[in-house]
Amino acid sequence: MTEVIPHWLDKQADLSPDKTAIETSDGEELTFQQLRDKSRSLAKKMAASGVQEGNHVALLAANSSDMAAAIHALSYLGAVAVLLNVRLSAAELAYQLNDAEVSCLLYDDGHTELALSAVDQADCPDFRSFREIIEQTETTVALQEELVLNKLFTIIYTSGTTGFPKGVEHTYGNHWWSAVSSALNLGLSKNDKWLASLPLFHVGGLSLLVKSVVYGMPVYLMKKFDIDLAHRAIISENVTIVSVVAVMLERLINKLAGGRYPDSFRCMLLGGGPAPEPLLEKARLHEIPVFQTYGMTETSSQIVTLSPDYALSKLGSAGKPLVPAQLKIMLEGNPAPDGTVGEIVVKGPMVTKGYYKNDSANDKSFHDGWLATGDLGKLDEDGFLYVMDRRKDLIISGGENIYPAEIESVLAGMDGVKEAGVIGREDDQWGQVPVVFIVASHTDLTKEKVFDYCRERLAKFKVPKHVYFIAELPRNASNKLVRHKLVDLLGEYES
Amino acid sequence: MTEVIPHWLDKQADLSPDKTAIETSDGEELTFQQLRDKSRSLAKKMAASGVQEGNHVALLAANSSDMAAAIHALSYLGAVAVLLNVRLSAAELAYQLNDAEVSCLLYDDGHTELALSAVDQADCPDFRSFREIIEQTETTVALQEELVLNKLFTIIYTSGTTGFPKGVEHTYGNHWWSAVSSALNLGLSKNDKWLASLPLFHVGGLSLLVKSVVYGMPVYLMKKFDIDLAHRAIISENVTIVSVVAVMLERLINKLAGGRYPDSFRCMLLGGGPAPEPLLEKARLHEIPVFQTYGMTETSSQIVTLSPDYALSKLGSAGKPLVPAQLKIMLEGNPAPDGTVGEIVVKGPMVTKGYYKNDSANDKSFHDGWLATGDLGKLDEDGFLYVMDRRKDLIISGGENIYPAEIESVLAGMDGVKEAGVIGREDDQWGQVPVVFIVASHTDLTKEKVFDYCRERLAKFKVPKHVYFIAELPRNASNKLVRHKLVDLLGEYES
Repeated sequence: MTEVIPHWLDKQADLSPDKTAIETSDGEELTFQQLRDKSRSLAKKMAASGVQEGNHVALLAANSSDMAAAIHALSYLGAVAVLLNVRLSAAELAYQLNDAEVSCLLYDDGHTELALSAVDQADCPDFRSFREIIEQTETTVALQEELVLNKLFTIIYTSGTTGFPKGVEHTYGNHWWSAVSSALNLGLSKNDKWLASLPLFHVGGLSLLVKSVVYGMPVYLMKKFDIDLAHRAIISENVTIVSVVAVMLERLINKLAGGRYPDSFRCMLLGGGPAPEPLLEKARLHEIPVFQTYGMTETSSQIVTLSPDYALSKLGSAGKPLVPAQLKIMLEGNPAPDGTVGEIVVKGPMVTKGYYKNDSANDKSFHDGWLATGDLGKLDEDGFLYVMDRRKDLIISGGENIYPAEIESVLAGMDGVKEAGVIGREDDQWGQVPVVFIVASHTDLTKEKVFDYCRERLAKFKVPKHVYFIAELPRNASNKLVRHKLVDLLGEYES
Repeated sequence: MTEVIPHWLDKQADLSPDKTAIETSDGEELTFQQLRDKSRSLAKKMAASGVQEGNHVALLAANSSDMAAAIHALSYLGAVAVLLNVRLSAAELAYQLNDAEVSCLLYDDGHTELALSAVDQADCPDFRSFREIIEQTETTVALQEELVLNKLFTIIYTSGTTGFPKGVEHTYGNHWWSAVSSALNLGLSKNDKWLASLPLFHVGGLSLLVKSVVYGMPVYLMKKFDIDLAHRAIISENVTIVSVVAVMLERLINKLAGGRYPDSFRCMLLGGGPAPEPLLEKARLHEIPVFQTYGMTETSSQIVTLSPDYALSKLGSAGKPLVPAQLKIMLEGNPAPDGTVGEIVVKGPMVTKGYYKNDSANDKSFHDGWLATGDLGKLDEDGFLYVMDRRKDLIISGGENIYPAEIESVLAGMDGVKEAGVIGREDDQWGQVPVVFIVASHTDLTKEKVFDYCRERLAKFKVPKHVYFIAELPRNASNKLVRHKLVDLLGEYES
């Protein structure tokens, strides 16, 4: 028996009508009442454009109050939002439009060309700009007054190991439980305001939109991550929580220089992959309350978080699974002993029930309610998780496992190294060997210095065999390092 | 598809092993790790005494860490806890033992005689003292590692309008959602400590035990409500939240005299029936953050709460339904217009799915997922609930509805009146007329003064026709006024 709750935006418009729901970096501000009215109006205009309950509607847009309202509008219609990454190519988008059986693509003004080009390559019967929708006349349609928690709300694609992206299904319940689990972990204050610098088409951004309506909390929405705006939001806009990935945190700390965040700033939620320890040390020196987390699209944002009580004693750990979540490390079908690296396997009501119409991926990833994440990690003797790497990024050299993140973490502590990305290269003798791409922060950094630094700190087989200097590392819309693009680059360098 | 979560006490013992879970007014203190160990040990000893998964086990005990551990122990065994009110007669308890199909009754040392006498009148195959269980040797038994949210956890009896009490079923999910809903309303702080002065066999007390393990929060457990201990707990034991009913609040304010609670004290959660406005005014003068609530056993504790933002502007209202909850006022099968009194009907994941094996009560109370509470109330134009009375307490006089709580509230503001309880008396001319029982706070209060005071403030038909002075009002274990006992008293006075 599934649970039913009142529509969460209606609820907050009733409980806190005049409280700010969304504040944008452009200076726009919407109360819960206004966001509700805007979203319901948009729903009626979408209905006038033919969107019906159960339809899959794709959204291709940057962060804006229109994008937020469009997501809520689809929930009022009982339609499914397929959230598209604006950085993808038209061909990649076309794949997702077809795979998710999208009946209508909606896009903002900044992505007209990309949208039209994608539709051109896909079987998507309808496509409209946000502007067209907004100019429609509302039609009479019964809007959803309740949310049935096991009903599908969003689909977000994640790259698959096979090369074909998989559509992660999120029910209303997945999002609800994610929001509640996060609150049970981080606490909940009437003064909270969360900075959303991540795109809404990523689960990290989308989850904030849900937290906003579940908590009755304002979200400060950035069109895209902007270091100056983000810094100012923390310093003078009463932001209390920020979601970041490592590279954003690095830049924020540099911007902070010798300064200090206000006492009301209570949480820097750090996700998006293993964080280099030197960065965490630097954050500690600046008294920034960093909460390391581990999560993915499939877990509707973080599922493991390091509580503040252990921030120092377990530096580098992602913490423990949230209250309703469970985690185990599996090695060849059995739970791995403490300290041994294996695959991270998770369970909980925030975990997706599956990939959209993808039996083979589902068969591979889901067993007895547990999701095999494909990530590698280990538990220490106290049960704290240390995330190593994506399993597909693991480098196996002469039978030894090498975790790129470990080498990157070491290099992040080296003077002259701004960022480092490590991948494996085919090697006749060892199978694979590690190579590193480095963004240098000053010009006298040499390959020899890098080798020397690594030799002093790493086992011989972990020392990168080649150093490539590069202007910037390839990152995705969430600023996460995209290692497979380094593999492509390597091909170019070596061809 | 129901959700599954890890056992909540195991979880907190993992997340916050050394944090205090339970502190008793006797000075006992248990961390989450200790409470877990104690509860699991007790479960293994209960198993050694024959308790099995699915059994219904009744608990007859005052508040203590043993009682708390016994409740958790039953969850580890997958058994159902039937929580018995220690103030009931043996015959009343026997009825509940039979109705709930209890296979074993467990009792503490203070209730041996009552327990044996109850078992004597019931078909309860087994009964044991806590002491006997504790002295058992643990047996090997698989304890529940997960909680399946739609599984039955507790049964608590509530008085039925027909005279036969009904067993309210609570699933793990009902309790979970209640705890989460409360946190979404009140916020959640790592410094919270909740004073449990209500008995654990009432839902108001039991819900704190669940909040403790869901939030990772210490509960200060009183054996029974003691005004000095409660006052001291707030003043000097870092208690931040207290659950009270009106009469407790009255006494706390008198105790506080000209003093003030510490700033860390953030919430006086007031339930157990409509509160007299003069009391709320008095609390406001003392700057006590009172949150009026409305709830009942069937809603697993509060389901409607007045948020602090509206504490002043909506004085006397119980507020709005919690985030996952819904409410409507029904009058003759239709939603009542704003301002019109009707029956309060509620829906939400914290609402019981039904009364144990009681088809007729279930048919009467549940319709399309909504529970008809039997309580009367109205909504104002902003959607705030004002609870009037239990429907069965409604007095109908010459066709006019009279709500006892209204008259009691007026009299609570009269100098010389400590407490007042109003009921209806049969009347040949009017059908019913109101009469009042008064506990006087000084001796020069006369019936005439009461009549005069009421005549100035109430419509003529609402002025009580008789005044009875009485030493104290009959109250139940939660300190709620028991109006049907006033009816019995009236019979004695008039016979």
